[in-house]
Amino acid sequence: MNTDMIKVVKIGGNVIDSEEALRGFCRDFAALKGPKVLVHGGGVMASRFQEHLGVPVQMVEGRRVTDAETIRIVTMVYAGWAGKHIAALLQSFGCNAMSMAGCDASVIKASRRAPKLLSDGCTTVDYGLVGDVTEESVDAAPLSSLLSLGITPVLCAITHDGKGNLLNTNADTIASSVCCALGAQLLYCFEKDGVLLDRDDPGSVVKRLTPESYSRLRSEGKISDGMIPKLDNAFAALDRGALSVRIKNAAALLDENAGTEIFLKKPYEH
Amino acid sequence: MNTDMIKVVKIGGNVIDSEEALRGFCRDFAALKGPKVLVHGGGVMASRFQEHLGVPVQMVEGRRVTDAETIRIVTMVYAGWAGKHIAALLQSFGCNAMSMAGCDASVIKASRRAPKLLSDGCTTVDYGLVGDVTEESVDAAPLSSLLSLGITPVLCAITHDGKGNLLNTNADTIASSVCCALGAQLLYCFEKDGVLLDRDDPGSVVKRLTPESYSRLRSEGKISDGMIPKLDNAFAALDRGALSVRIKNAAALLDENAGTEIFLKKPYEH
Repeated sequence: MNTDMIKVVKIGGNVIDSEEALRGFCRDFAALKGPKVLVHGGGVMASRFQEHLGVPVQMVEGRRVTDAETIRIVTMVYAGWAGKHIAALLQSFGCNAMSMAGCDASVIKASRRAPKLLSDGCTTVDYGLVGDVTEESVDAAPLSSLLSLGITPVLCAITHDGKGNLLNTNADTIASSVCCALGAQLLYCFEKDGVLLDRDDPGSVVKRLTPESYSRLRSEGKISDGMIPKLDNAFAALDRGALSVRIKNAAALLDENAGTEIFLKKPYEH
Repeated sequence: MNTDMIKVVKIGGNVIDSEEALRGFCRDFAALKGPKVLVHGGGVMASRFQEHLGVPVQMVEGRRVTDAETIRIVTMVYAGWAGKHIAALLQSFGCNAMSMAGCDASVIKASRRAPKLLSDGCTTVDYGLVGDVTEESVDAAPLSSLLSLGITPVLCAITHDGKGNLLNTNADTIASSVCCALGAQLLYCFEKDGVLLDRDDPGSVVKRLTPESYSRLRSEGKISDGMIPKLDNAFAALDRGALSVRIKNAAALLDENAGTEIFLKKPYEH
């Protein structure tokens, strides 16, 4: 692996939610060579905190409906506790982290999602203060400047609209958009060992996935529902400028061959 | 006023707590010429949120006793909601803000406060996860780098100890320490017009305060208790490298002559 390439690493809410897993991950992330960016979720923690506050959690097709009270809560959890806790841990392991939201140095300016027709074709949902991003939403210049100062950006999934409003945004999409804008390598890290053919068998990791094999496994019902948006994102990222994409266990961050590698072409065509 | 000088502006929790006052302040701060740093509190909001969560607020000699749950709450409120809300507002007014805590780029590394003997001389209090800072705690290099990139640091009162722990720190002390480290001008902004001789008469602003006049007014009981730590901080800042200190109303940020100017010597000695 070329250590001059920028790596964009995404970790999910389950890793953040375990103090032990998070500490181990931060130690490994700090040891990862070369320029890097961390993107983190925090949805599990946010939902629990919302319930604790008596604010109902409303998810539609996997996305959180975000009213004025919910944007406060997710901003507090993602950009406040999770972001600063990760930054302090990374500093303790010698990684000069800077935890940021999209409003900081305006690195990610999103557009508020218009009310959307659901997949049933007849229900329309207004997600509220939710932002959609593409690689054009990302300003790579401040991220590159920070990297050249030896500072590691740590991004959460809060963006802004440029008019003073914060927006709740999908962290996987932020990771892929940042990766495309920087022409970087993308590592999706979560609590499983990669794309599994059998969700109960960690040994069933698919080592390589091309659009053709993805399409075949999907039609055979062998890719779980939760994996589909992540894989769609992964292929789209490769299509739009990401150098490479790998999906792996957060605990295997430093093992370059762990997990599932996503290819646009069959490996032998490379 | 020389616009090449860096200005460090501190706003208190009462300004942040009013959406209208905060928006007006952010508009004015964005219009302030020259390189600048904003330091904000958020204590009013944090106390209300703590009570809402059923976590008792314990203040001893004006400082918050901070256990593991409280550090989470103040980090969420200061670094999460307040910091990102201010950054998004500043961006909307054309100021390229970056909201940070002390762990970010390790700009402020504090030491955890040892259990302290109170002013009664017999009670000892352990403030918990509370950090103390001096100008040596501040790393001016990343702040200067950000300023030279045209980015305006927005600092909250959360610091770190370098061992992975976040610490709750006094925002006035952060402002004065950052100011000394940068050799900057310090503007303490709050909801009053300056140092008042009569707290109920906004016309009773002291225009200039020297150590001698401060000492005299204090012994005459004309300086209110809440003002004393702020003024002690102000004189200490001048002693340690701040270029100038002014205490004024947040609503009069752009009026260079508003409020109380703090001098180490009598004005005619300059």
